Amino acid sequence: MFKKILENTSKKSPVIHNITNYVTVNDCANIQLALSASPIMADDPFEVADITFISSALNINIGTLNKQTIESMLISGKLANNHKIPVVFDPVGTGASSLRTDTSFKILNNTKLAVIRGNASEIKTLAIGKGSTKGVDVSEADIDSSLESLTEVAKDFSKKIKAVVAVTGATDIVTDGEKTYTIYNGNPLMSKVTGTGCMLSAVISAFIGANPNDILTSTAAAVCTMGICGEKAFERMSKDDGNSSYRNYIIDAAFTLNGNELERRAKYEVK
Amino acid sequence: MFKKILENTSKKSPVIHNITNYVTVNDCANIQLALSASPIMADDPFEVADITFISSALNINIGTLNKQTIESMLISGKLANNHKIPVVFDPVGTGASSLRTDTSFKILNNTKLAVIRGNASEIKTLAIGKGSTKGVDVSEADIDSSLESLTEVAKDFSKKIKAVVAVTGATDIVTDGEKTYTIYNGNPLMSKVTGTGCMLSAVISAFIGANPNDILTSTAAAVCTMGICGEKAFERMSKDDGNSSYRNYIIDAAFTLNGNELERRAKYEVK
Amino acid sequence: MFKKILENTSKKSPVIHNITNYVTVNDCANIQLALSASPIMADDPFEVADITFISSALNINIGTLNKQTIESMLISGKLANNHKIPVVFDPVGTGASSLRTDTSFKILNNTKLAVIRGNASEIKTLAIGKGSTKGVDVSEADIDSSLESLTEVAKDFSKKIKAVVAVTGATDIVTDGEKTYTIYNGNPLMSKVTGTGCMLSAVISAFIGANPNDILTSTAAAVCTMGICGEKAFERMSKDDGNSSYRNYIIDAAFTLNGNELERRAKYEVK
Repeated sequence: MFKKILENTSKKSPVIHNITNYVTVNDCANIQLALSASPIMADDPFEVADITFISSALNINIGTLNKQTIESMLISGKLANNHKIPVVFDPVGTGASSLRTDTSFKILNNTKLAVIRGNASEIKTLAIGKGSTKGVDVSEADIDSSLESLTEVAKDFSKKIKAVVAVTGATDIVTDGEKTYTIYNGNPLMSKVTGTGCMLSAVISAFIGANPNDILTSTAAAVCTMGICGEKAFERMSKDDGNSSYRNYIIDAAFTLNGNELERRAKYEVK
Repeated sequence: MFKKILENTSKKSPVIHNITNYVTVNDCANIQLALSASPIMADDPFEVADITFISSALNINIGTLNKQTIESMLISGKLANNHKIPVVFDPVGTGASSLRTDTSFKILNNTKLAVIRGNASEIKTLAIGKGSTKGVDVSEADIDSSLESLTEVAKDFSKKIKAVVAVTGATDIVTDGEKTYTIYNGNPLMSKVTGTGCMLSAVISAFIGANPNDILTSTAAAVCTMGICGEKAFERMSKDDGNSSYRNYIIDAAFTLNGNELERRAKYEVK
Repeated sequence: MFKKILENTSKKSPVIHNITNYVTVNDCANIQLALSASPIMADDPFEVADITFISSALNINIGTLNKQTIESMLISGKLANNHKIPVVFDPVGTGASSLRTDTSFKILNNTKLAVIRGNASEIKTLAIGKGSTKGVDVSEADIDSSLESLTEVAKDFSKKIKAVVAVTGATDIVTDGEKTYTIYNGNPLMSKVTGTGCMLSAVISAFIGANPNDILTSTAAAVCTMGICGEKAFERMSKDDGNSSYRNYIIDAAFTLNGNELERRAKYEVK
């Protein structure tokens, strides 16, 4: 099943419109290219509608939001909704500033999302109004949330906003409110590379751009893909390698991954 | 001939002003440094004239244009023209949005360019008003243009705008309307790295900054250089490497390239 | 002493607010992560106060400044001062444009800095009103300043602005006006990687964020750390490697560095 999702992405090479931050944008573009998607980054209010219109998915990421790009996110979100183009939202650092939290709610209230993906702090802030925050990283307090309670939060939130919710961390949760994937792929070192979350949202966007009729499975496949890339990359690490080489190896692993390997290495439960 | 162009760049270490996108900017800076140029990135309307003034070439790239940076491109283009500083233009994604197409024409109408470099879709959009588009990547339709017809388009466009035109793809065309280089260096994997086009425009800028009296040869030398870097990088690829390591190897190859190697590996015809 | 500074950073994992340029931002984030700090990049005037408020240090870098981000730098600087959050300032390219020079003076006049770090051209421009400039790189003229005269300039400037001054180049100077470190770590190849200066300022920010009571020692430790990373990275270079692999190796070296290695490899004199 995951195999087909990866292969469709490679076959269709969907154009993905990314309105994203300037910190991790290059890695997001390269990981989409690694999977044979065709990324385009554009964030000016005067062109984003045109760009979304020619795209198969829209990826909104507020990592370095500003007044201009917030306007663009809302414009593109609306156009995407009108044209049934699926929208992924990555609420980076929600909870860390009023602007991020307010913007996230504005996007939730004005855009029908296909998928929202964040860490436990970000999702809890949006779902139940109380995540704690450590900047763009998950807070200690939220790391300690039990998997069960976090799954309940994710399921309720998914039902409420009618979107697939992905909460990623040591263990990942992907749910549409009814069916829930609990995913065990990944490596702790991924938290030492800036943008592994952003890259995952970029992968989700590529997968749903090519597989718009199966958002839940595509999102779960993307989460497994990213985790497997983290594992494969870790297997390549030599003693002098650190987080920078690791970043390269992660993207390389997306490039070399094939459908059979994805199926074989994916570690998850579905309920 | 190419040898001397590369060596001049290394000797003179020209300051290059880049008004460019935030996706591939780091790679553009590093490939200019690899060739011993001295890149400076600046895009605020209040400072770009100062920066262009101290530079040996101006590199304009609309990859992530916005209202502010478009104004800066026009200001710097004018100053560069007044001071005989050569200008390179990379019309990224022209055809994908009205803003990109309109801005490209605005730049063409207000700035005397030394070189314009794009893929077949971008150049056809500007030259004959009909390229198709696939975001920032060349469209299938335009890949299939015959080399002969594309060369005619490039030559006519070059005569019209009085600038060197470089159309890059599987085979590259560099022409000043009279003399035309057809260039065969490169590797298909380059299309899986974001910004190889941007990097090439950065290399052209570095070469013409150091060799302002031979724009055509400098541009052809830059196109061969980039292609050779793609070839050398490909030769280093191991089975676990993907597009991220390949990106690093491309820039590394620019760093290790010397004049003799450039001469020996350059594959082109001149007519 | 340096050992403890590095280990505190790793232990405390301080949140660092970076208002920085879009050229080298990814490398700055990754080198802070390599040292176990938690970087957040945010530059919109409407959120920077919130972000600075939750941070242990503020890193201001004018590499690609614009009207919006200048406003943000001043807002965050003021809030940081009010809450005793130490501020690092990297005046990239000061002297290359009026906007950069004026902004640097505006920041100096409105913000109490903990540390200012620049190359000889940048610091001389701010300290004595006459550095020459070569864009964002140090000028030939300023490379030739004698170490003695540069040290005097740095000491006087430090007394005047009551901040630690770091002038970095082939030999580095770190002074609080009374006590001066002369540091000999590093490798010439570092000048071929964009952003090694920015990365150093990012490392200083991480170290002082975790060690706010010893700004001078933390800054000296950061300068040695960056130099040692340049040395360790150079030792890994193979014949095909260039500046791109070197960049990765530098960040990797920060990741693998431990306190004992830092103490053992640090090469400096204190007076």
